[in-house]
Amino acid sequence: MNYKMMGRFIAQLISIEGVFLLPALCISLFYGEHSAVRGFALTVAIILAVSALLYTLCRRAGRLFGAREGLVCVGLSWIILSLLGALPFFLSGHIPNYIDALFETVSGFTTTGASILSDVESLPRGLLYWRSFTHWVGGMGVLVFLLAISTGGEQGKGFTMHLMRAESPGPDVGKLVPKMKQTATILYGIYIVLTIVNIVLLLLGGMNWLDALCTAFGTAGTGGFGVRNDSIASFSPYIQNVTTVFMLLFGVNFSCYYLLLLRQFRGVFRDEELRTYVGIVIAAIVLISLNTFSIYGNLADTVRHAAFKVGSIMTTTGSTTTDYELWPAFSKGILLTLMVIGACAGSTGGGIKVARVLLLLKSLRRNIRQIMNPKKVMVVRNNGRPVDEKVLDNTNAYLAAYVVIVIVCYLLISLDGFSIGTNLSAVLACFNNIGPGMETVGPMFNYGCYSDFSTVVLSLAMLAGRLEIFPILVLSSRSAWKGR
Amino acid sequence: MNYKMMGRFIAQLISIEGVFLLPALCISLFYGEHSAVRGFALTVAIILAVSALLYTLCRRAGRLFGAREGLVCVGLSWIILSLLGALPFFLSGHIPNYIDALFETVSGFTTTGASILSDVESLPRGLLYWRSFTHWVGGMGVLVFLLAISTGGEQGKGFTMHLMRAESPGPDVGKLVPKMKQTATILYGIYIVLTIVNIVLLLLGGMNWLDALCTAFGTAGTGGFGVRNDSIASFSPYIQNVTTVFMLLFGVNFSCYYLLLLRQFRGVFRDEELRTYVGIVIAAIVLISLNTFSIYGNLADTVRHAAFKVGSIMTTTGSTTTDYELWPAFSKGILLTLMVIGACAGSTGGGIKVARVLLLLKSLRRNIRQIMNPKKVMVVRNNGRPVDEKVLDNTNAYLAAYVVIVIVCYLLISLDGFSIGTNLSAVLACFNNIGPGMETVGPMFNYGCYSDFSTVVLSLAMLAGRLEIFPILVLSSRSAWKGR
Repeated sequence: MNYKMMGRFIAQLISIEGVFLLPALCISLFYGEHSAVRGFALTVAIILAVSALLYTLCRRAGRLFGAREGLVCVGLSWIILSLLGALPFFLSGHIPNYIDALFETVSGFTTTGASILSDVESLPRGLLYWRSFTHWVGGMGVLVFLLAISTGGEQGKGFTMHLMRAESPGPDVGKLVPKMKQTATILYGIYIVLTIVNIVLLLLGGMNWLDALCTAFGTAGTGGFGVRNDSIASFSPYIQNVTTVFMLLFGVNFSCYYLLLLRQFRGVFRDEELRTYVGIVIAAIVLISLNTFSIYGNLADTVRHAAFKVGSIMTTTGSTTTDYELWPAFSKGILLTLMVIGACAGSTGGGIKVARVLLLLKSLRRNIRQIMNPKKVMVVRNNGRPVDEKVLDNTNAYLAAYVVIVIVCYLLISLDGFSIGTNLSAVLACFNNIGPGMETVGPMFNYGCYSDFSTVVLSLAMLAGRLEIFPILVLSSRSAWKGR
Repeated sequence: MNYKMMGRFIAQLISIEGVFLLPALCISLFYGEHSAVRGFALTVAIILAVSALLYTLCRRAGRLFGAREGLVCVGLSWIILSLLGALPFFLSGHIPNYIDALFETVSGFTTTGASILSDVESLPRGLLYWRSFTHWVGGMGVLVFLLAISTGGEQGKGFTMHLMRAESPGPDVGKLVPKMKQTATILYGIYIVLTIVNIVLLLLGGMNWLDALCTAFGTAGTGGFGVRNDSIASFSPYIQNVTTVFMLLFGVNFSCYYLLLLRQFRGVFRDEELRTYVGIVIAAIVLISLNTFSIYGNLADTVRHAAFKVGSIMTTTGSTTTDYELWPAFSKGILLTLMVIGACAGSTGGGIKVARVLLLLKSLRRNIRQIMNPKKVMVVRNNGRPVDEKVLDNTNAYLAAYVVIVIVCYLLISLDGFSIGTNLSAVLACFNNIGPGMETVGPMFNYGCYSDFSTVVLSLAMLAGRLEIFPILVLSSRSAWKGR
């Protein structure tokens, strides 16, 4: 393991985090929020000191390459970014418990949107902005951002590929263009444009600019941190519908947008994952609308709430317009299922991902046929092309790891004594990066009820979910730390 | 598909079921239970008529062979056995709803032990015997029994192997001896001896002979149907402890007992699955004892209840000595986890099976190492020997199918409107063949609350769980029914 190079890499990364903090600092200065200004200024100073130290210690580093370095680097980076990103909340005194501040920040970067705060509206505007900005940058990935802006000379080619693979969601990361740096730039380009369109539409709906910025950040990263205590509920139906549409758009594989730019409409239209995603969304909206019609009494409200919640849960955003705890058990069951499935691979959403669910089902179908015809050789296909057996193996390992993590986390947080529904939905909501769970951690409550120990467990679950498990699991493996 | 041969096979099988009903009929005759006598007599008559019809229709059948026939045959057989086995409950009028009677019978044959009856003690003794006997014969397998007593000339060799493989639990069925018929005989021999020892020990504890028979049947099949409304709670601590020990013994892979008979002690002692099983049992008992000590106040009671419940849930028996709904959330979490893990492969218990969990974890560990060292070839080992990649593929497919079935069943029964904990534990308790779940289907309640639709869904889940998913899944696949 090339520790020096890793140190340099992390120094670069946290410098960028320091730069990201500056707009938040400016906002707090502008509004005269003294406590927040102190928090931001101190954090920036600490980041400067740490990164200077790292640069000095890690001069003359060789090149990084290989999958192992990529994985370890991604896992470590996200933990360090979160540890530092939590400082403004803690140092400003607005979240007096550092573990809680860490939870809030991990929840931000991983685009989970689970909160320990009961009164969001009392936060200084600078902190609100920072909280939502972590969603935005976490959605597409901080390391992908670094890749997009870096000169690219320092890291080995293999390393950047592995890094991108580790941070981008999905069973099989397709490069859009041969060069990783260019791929990263294209992805961020599409991301920025979509975010700007979303902001403009929100401003047209009468939102003030800071609310629009924060809401769009939360939507783009499919995070779900809002600026009001009731999430999106008290905004107009127009704002809610705009958010629904954009949540769903940000849950689509970004390579589809790239294909659209290249005018390859047929490729987009035929994409199995996209078709399945749209199919599931429509089916869920119809079923929930039928199931909850009696609650709202008119079709427009029913469909609006159903569509919002389906978009919000399926894309793992987690924003809320209505208390779905009041919905019938069947609708809640659909939501729990959508939580697990999640959004498309290569989007900013979490969960197992539609592409992976498709692969699992196809591989299962093949297995059943194989049992009946043991001698026939069968191939799993995706979009007409055969899928590499390695990808299938990884997908199956992913499911196994997923189940193990859900069970272990569930067991650990059940030490706090809440109900099965609360604990299970808390684990699923954090691990799948959704945010609010059900019962005691439902949309009208928050995660403040859990002990520090459980808060740390859930933070790790969020990180494991966002980074698709392996970069975090690898950190616990001895062989990851052995020298080459 | 050789339908004629399948018809003959099923005719044989239900004739055996008819023979099995005779002792129950005699018991009811002896105690003068008129309604039950009528139920049993009518059922035997119907079975005679159906099997005579099948024999006549399906004369001159060729041989059956191949995995597909084996799977379809097992799936169909179990459904037909359950449909007929439910008749005594229904025709005697003691369970007036046929769907409920079917649920009770499926629950019996699959050794689940979930009941829709709130007052077991009011049942005639003949029906109580039949209910418990379905556990006993379902535990080791009706088809395995047929194999053990058949002359073996009629079916092809390949077929009996596939049949045994489909009905016996575990990722990889090891033949004890080269001949399947002999293996089946050895298994049933061990099974009968262990059951008799259990009965004798219960009689020594002062149980009457019918209670002892029924309790031992439930323990041997790891079923859990009892003869009292409070399961085992009102029996003496001696009876409870005997049951704990035998539940755990019946949860062990029977090939271990065969090795013991051959005096291959080292093989038994080194068996990874057995060691893991014992380890999990001890760990769970210690953790739950620590967690529930304050409820019972003294060590003896605490450990007795903890050991009983751990044995009962881990082996998927489901008997109860105490209301674990009153236990803290952590203990309930451990129980839910044990439900999913289940007993050893090749035992009468259900669940994913310890062997399969071990394979999944080992395959996951290999995958993590493989990601870090993509070029190294790594082999998963079990008891020191390399595991066939096909077995690993099947194990992963099993997990995928497991997750899909849990989610689908959960969604379907949530139409009835109960809580997340109730529905989820109901699905897990039925699918893993345990019996009582939690909350509304907890140990002090029963499944009578669910609608007919949900009862059918849960019945199918029990069958899928007992037959390890594929024989039931295959029935829904078109290619299973195509002619060769």
